[in-house]
Amino acid sequence: MSGRRGGGRRSRAIRGGDGISQLPWQEVVNTYAPMQLLDEERIEALHRNSMRILSEIGIRVMSEKAMALFEKAGAIVDRENLMIRIDESIVEAALATTPSSFTLTSRNPEKRLTIGGNTIAFGLVAGPPNVHDRVNGRRQGNLADYQNFTRLAHHFNAIHILGNQVCAPMELPANSRHLDTYMANLTLSDLCFHCTAIGRGRAVDGINMMAIARGISVEEMSQSPGVITIISVNSPRLFDDAMADGLIAMAEHGQPVTITPFTLMGAMTPVTLAAALCQQNAEALFGVTLAQLVNPGTPVMYGAFTSNVDMRSGAPAFGTPENAKANIIAGQLARRYKLPYRTSNANASNAVDLQAAYETEMATWGAVLGGANLIYHAAGWLEGGLTASYEKLVLDVEILQNMMGFLEPMPFSEDDLGFDAIRSVPAGGHFFGSEHTMARYETAFYQPMLSNWQNYGSWQEAGGRDALERATDIWQQALREYEEPVLDPAIREELDAYTIKRRAEIGAGEP
Amino acid sequence: MSGRRGGGRRSRAIRGGDGISQLPWQEVVNTYAPMQLLDEERIEALHRNSMRILSEIGIRVMSEKAMALFEKAGAIVDRENLMIRIDESIVEAALATTPSSFTLTSRNPEKRLTIGGNTIAFGLVAGPPNVHDRVNGRRQGNLADYQNFTRLAHHFNAIHILGNQVCAPMELPANSRHLDTYMANLTLSDLCFHCTAIGRGRAVDGINMMAIARGISVEEMSQSPGVITIISVNSPRLFDDAMADGLIAMAEHGQPVTITPFTLMGAMTPVTLAAALCQQNAEALFGVTLAQLVNPGTPVMYGAFTSNVDMRSGAPAFGTPENAKANIIAGQLARRYKLPYRTSNANASNAVDLQAAYETEMATWGAVLGGANLIYHAAGWLEGGLTASYEKLVLDVEILQNMMGFLEPMPFSEDDLGFDAIRSVPAGGHFFGSEHTMARYETAFYQPMLSNWQNYGSWQEAGGRDALERATDIWQQALREYEEPVLDPAIREELDAYTIKRRAEIGAGEP
Repeated sequence: MSGRRGGGRRSRAIRGGDGISQLPWQEVVNTYAPMQLLDEERIEALHRNSMRILSEIGIRVMSEKAMALFEKAGAIVDRENLMIRIDESIVEAALATTPSSFTLTSRNPEKRLTIGGNTIAFGLVAGPPNVHDRVNGRRQGNLADYQNFTRLAHHFNAIHILGNQVCAPMELPANSRHLDTYMANLTLSDLCFHCTAIGRGRAVDGINMMAIARGISVEEMSQSPGVITIISVNSPRLFDDAMADGLIAMAEHGQPVTITPFTLMGAMTPVTLAAALCQQNAEALFGVTLAQLVNPGTPVMYGAFTSNVDMRSGAPAFGTPENAKANIIAGQLARRYKLPYRTSNANASNAVDLQAAYETEMATWGAVLGGANLIYHAAGWLEGGLTASYEKLVLDVEILQNMMGFLEPMPFSEDDLGFDAIRSVPAGGHFFGSEHTMARYETAFYQPMLSNWQNYGSWQEAGGRDALERATDIWQQALREYEEPVLDPAIREELDAYTIKRRAEIGAGEP
Repeated sequence: MSGRRGGGRRSRAIRGGDGISQLPWQEVVNTYAPMQLLDEERIEALHRNSMRILSEIGIRVMSEKAMALFEKAGAIVDRENLMIRIDESIVEAALATTPSSFTLTSRNPEKRLTIGGNTIAFGLVAGPPNVHDRVNGRRQGNLADYQNFTRLAHHFNAIHILGNQVCAPMELPANSRHLDTYMANLTLSDLCFHCTAIGRGRAVDGINMMAIARGISVEEMSQSPGVITIISVNSPRLFDDAMADGLIAMAEHGQPVTITPFTLMGAMTPVTLAAALCQQNAEALFGVTLAQLVNPGTPVMYGAFTSNVDMRSGAPAFGTPENAKANIIAGQLARRYKLPYRTSNANASNAVDLQAAYETEMATWGAVLGGANLIYHAAGWLEGGLTASYEKLVLDVEILQNMMGFLEPMPFSEDDLGFDAIRSVPAGGHFFGSEHTMARYETAFYQPMLSNWQNYGSWQEAGGRDALERATDIWQQALREYEEPVLDPAIREELDAYTIKRRAEIGAGEP
């Protein structure tokens, strides 16, 4: 909020000398009312159907600890089939203890985020095995690229949160590479990040390392969360043990947990959007309930990832009309439960091309109109999530900044209404040099980073470079301009010591 | 509406053999409530400021006939300065006679459009001096390209209306080329089209030729409009004589007139959005009033074209955050006056690239959320309107079809809620072969035309063609698949005779 408190226009671009023009760091506030795609009656119908799924069909959870917690809460636990059925009263009791918003504080308190209400945070793409850029081509994920993406996420103010491994550093041992990526997150950026919650160990390492970086104890951090995780449900209706354990570890430490069912219509849910949303809703609320049973009051997010597949091939599709609708309706459901809402703005293109742009826009508009509080994978996602792309990251930052400009409230003073300015210019004249214009022209409009508004002749003379070529220039420039955020050497030493100790403990085992 | 009346899913793609997959011809209905970006109080503040502009500053009109009409209506006409000032009562009297919607009937009554209410029609790009495609490069407008674009507009069902000359056929005489383009419109397509309203003659020729093509008299057509025109105000506050005469001719014949102020913030209006909207509103209402003074009850549209310029160069910018907001708020204003609403979804890119895609998406979402009834320039606009692009047309049809899919209401029967379908699949299973899926998979999702959802390996093996390359394939295929709509030879003969007669009349003079 600092940008707005300062009285300046939120969308004013900042520019250091010849540096890349971009918006200042800010908490993005969506002051527009979310879109009501379904009326209240239909939202209630989705809710009731979800409750039936939970009470009559149930969720399979491969975790003894989770079964015990649910049993104690009054659920019907079928231990033979690992199936848990809960009625609405158990969900309601859980929802009574969920906060409607929470804060996330990184090692830089000026970048504290409020998650919930009408804020939106944008996350870096997470999880791809591959990386791509136009200079070096497509390659397996590796630590050098991981580090570069982290630098870019730090450099571009539109990115608020680091997701779960922007790419997997495949050259490093699988059981300890989370230590390397956490280290990159904490040294190359000052952003909050996502803890890998595949099992307890990886989650706790993230919590410990963020606490060290902030110079506070893990107990203090339980009152002031600094990391977040996302539990992906193995839809339909399955929580595996590693995910359940990760969820439990995070909740025990008071760190926020997002429950995101992986619900691609036609594959993991029925083909109908109404059914997919009911199933998503049931699975998400089940995870929310589990987190509250572990530790009442744990911050949780309602996660949505409902899109469709290509019914001819079974391939996932994103940024489709169905995905945009799902993004909006999921927001209506999240608000019904007073839960902060996470969704994504993915695309299914294999290249940073027109398709990547229009699919991302469709999904982004759906997310924003849906009142999303966290748009995960918002920068750099390509190939349905199999590749982290440098040029896509630049495209996405431009898309996000355009959206930030759109969300900025319109100035509406008497001067803004401009009656005298209009009177001062003759019919058929122009406003270029008018006093009213001169006083405002530097900040009147969003100044894009990637768009080129030259006329055709000038553009051709300057090389006729299209937006994709310019995106390459921009990420290269951003890496040159990047400045590593200062970190107290004592903290760095402590972080090093922690990772050395943990690597030894882990050895060849699981973390 | 036929697609919906038929009970089928509106978004189901149709496909003739190996033909291009596309949605069927349909009147697009936007069943979602338009976005209220400003509250009612602020909309009233814009209205009041507009009324002050009209009553205290005035509009310059270079037409004796218009001045006489306004004088008779009680306006203050300053003949020395050609300045007309009107108070709110004159505007209100005019608004009392404007229809809130109207129909447009082409020579194919099955393609009748309702303009107003919650319908949206999409128009072909209009006005560019140049054309471009990836095979033949950039060139001056000419009749062959004009004809090809008309064929594409006929072929792609998402395009509802032909705009004012998709490109200027520069090789033909300027004073009679409107006859050639009207002829192309009426023989190569069966769509409604825009009459050039630069002066009376061009407008009347369009009206006469559409009446011939429909086999009705001009008098009959005055009760059942078949053509439309757009009067662009020379903002700020100037109607030139040719435009005023065109407006008057159309209104006299009962054909719809759209009044679109050309309001680029910082150039033709103050830099502030609030002022730009007030000026746009004043200018649009002035034109609406003139049309009603000519012929009370004439169908009119409230036109909006408010975007910003690049304040560093003065170059026009489109698809900006400010443009998206303007598209939404202009819709609120149009609805305040119960007028059908026209806007555009332009972009400022020099190439069919990422920028062209994201700017077009920003503007399209603004237009749709704003409740636009006509999105003009919706297919093929490039270079800020200086080039009609074949590949951009394909991209735009995909964008429009995605939007049509988004606007399709979500099925919500008990079966759609899918409780039994969800119960039928075990936890961790999949829905690919389930009965519920099999019964619906062909029509469950929008089937895109341009998107490629193959996995990376298959896509690479198939040549790794990006969306721009595929767009070239698609327009080429569309021209091969195109079938000229049948036209009664007697009507064709009559049209030929009309143009021969008119060419002789026009000679070297003005039409």
